[in-house]
Amino acid sequence: MFADTDLSCDGFLGGRLRIWQPREGYRAAMDPVLLAAACPARPGETVLELGCGAGVASLCLAARVPGVRVTGLELQAGYADLARRNAAESGLGLTVVDGDLAHIPAGLRAQSFDHVIANPPYYPASGGTPARDAGRERALREKTPLALWLQAALRRLHPGGWLTMIQSADRLADVLALKGAGSIAILPVAPRAGRDATRVILRARKGGRGALRLLAPFVLHEGERHMRDGDSFTAAAQAVLRHGAALEI
Amino acid sequence: MFADTDLSCDGFLGGRLRIWQPREGYRAAMDPVLLAAACPARPGETVLELGCGAGVASLCLAARVPGVRVTGLELQAGYADLARRNAAESGLGLTVVDGDLAHIPAGLRAQSFDHVIANPPYYPASGGTPARDAGRERALREKTPLALWLQAALRRLHPGGWLTMIQSADRLADVLALKGAGSIAILPVAPRAGRDATRVILRARKGGRGALRLLAPFVLHEGERHMRDGDSFTAAAQAVLRHGAALEI
Repeated sequence: MFADTDLSCDGFLGGRLRIWQPREGYRAAMDPVLLAAACPARPGETVLELGCGAGVASLCLAARVPGVRVTGLELQAGYADLARRNAAESGLGLTVVDGDLAHIPAGLRAQSFDHVIANPPYYPASGGTPARDAGRERALREKTPLALWLQAALRRLHPGGWLTMIQSADRLADVLALKGAGSIAILPVAPRAGRDATRVILRARKGGRGALRLLAPFVLHEGERHMRDGDSFTAAAQAVLRHGAALEI
Repeated sequence: MFADTDLSCDGFLGGRLRIWQPREGYRAAMDPVLLAAACPARPGETVLELGCGAGVASLCLAARVPGVRVTGLELQAGYADLARRNAAESGLGLTVVDGDLAHIPAGLRAQSFDHVIANPPYYPASGGTPARDAGRERALREKTPLALWLQAALRRLHPGGWLTMIQSADRLADVLALKGAGSIAILPVAPRAGRDATRVILRARKGGRGALRLLAPFVLHEGERHMRDGDSFTAAAQAVLRHGAALEI
């Protein structure tokens, strides 16, 4: 659990959403907002977020799509509690389940969903310097292999349901190793035009048979390099990050 | 074999290279030129092209990199003969070996190379309408699975050697299933800015350990849609296609 003094309250979607999150732990930035924007959920549909953390992606989605029914699964009890608090204070519907996606709780195992979303850890299990904060380390470095995230996601989908996932671009081969889904679209996310992608957003359909599409990159910042502090977001990035627009795929 | 009346003689690299190819069979267009431009071979290095057809990629590479020693392997005897003729008439060095990459001839099996390049068929073995022309069908539809092309390519490389391959973008997952290589870079090729990629160029290093990179797309045409016939290539595409420049990755 976190003491209030260990928390900050940060605005998302231009301040529409206020999120309590640990000052020192894993802190959500743009990625869960992009993830929520890329999920094609419609009003009344059901969504499961695997590893919902403090609930940023789930709550951004609930804020954009009225009547969507979102469930978040979270392993770290402190983050699960924050997600409940963030949902309650924002007045948005989010059911948070404590548990491990590698051993889905029986109640969830009995359910299937129209959509699954996930922002799994980016760093492979071995190599690199561990984060000092244990919660942050768990959120950033995979203990559960990415293949298992993909498998758990597909198991929880209805036939024809959609998986939406954001990952580090250097994990693209691991993301595309998913089995049992098709109609895959890969949206590269690049900091600026002409730069390598830093993230990829995967959208795939359980049992889908459509051809894979590699989309034009979604570019976050204007210009060729960082010119000054402050707002240099592209209009498209502002629409998503500040105004809660959907990401068209 | 082709009769001369079945052939056309086409200019590549702004006319620097003249290529005899069948009027009705598989006809090279931009893809082998892009493939050659993406291969990082330096003077004096050795290159093997798997499935060299009439030799366009190999000869474009030989035209750009002085002193490079290129060998082409080709299954279809008529195309292998054309590649020899095209090499002789262009005055560029290219050794053409008749044979099947699924059963590499003993002489080639004894060799390894600094680089392997390939432009394998784009269409999976099943599905779709066969091409009327048998040679074109063989060049476009895979009989040898893509995984076997990748395996054959990596076997023929020195440790640390580079594989460069162009493929249809919808085969990205199959391309990234390659084993035994790392330091992968994927260059999407898009017809226009903002459009889905139609091709991907893979560059990978045998035994490489670098992180995968997803590069900014290489855009072929200016503008958002086809406005008029004739030249609408971007400056970058013109440099590669007309002036034989290297594709920087």
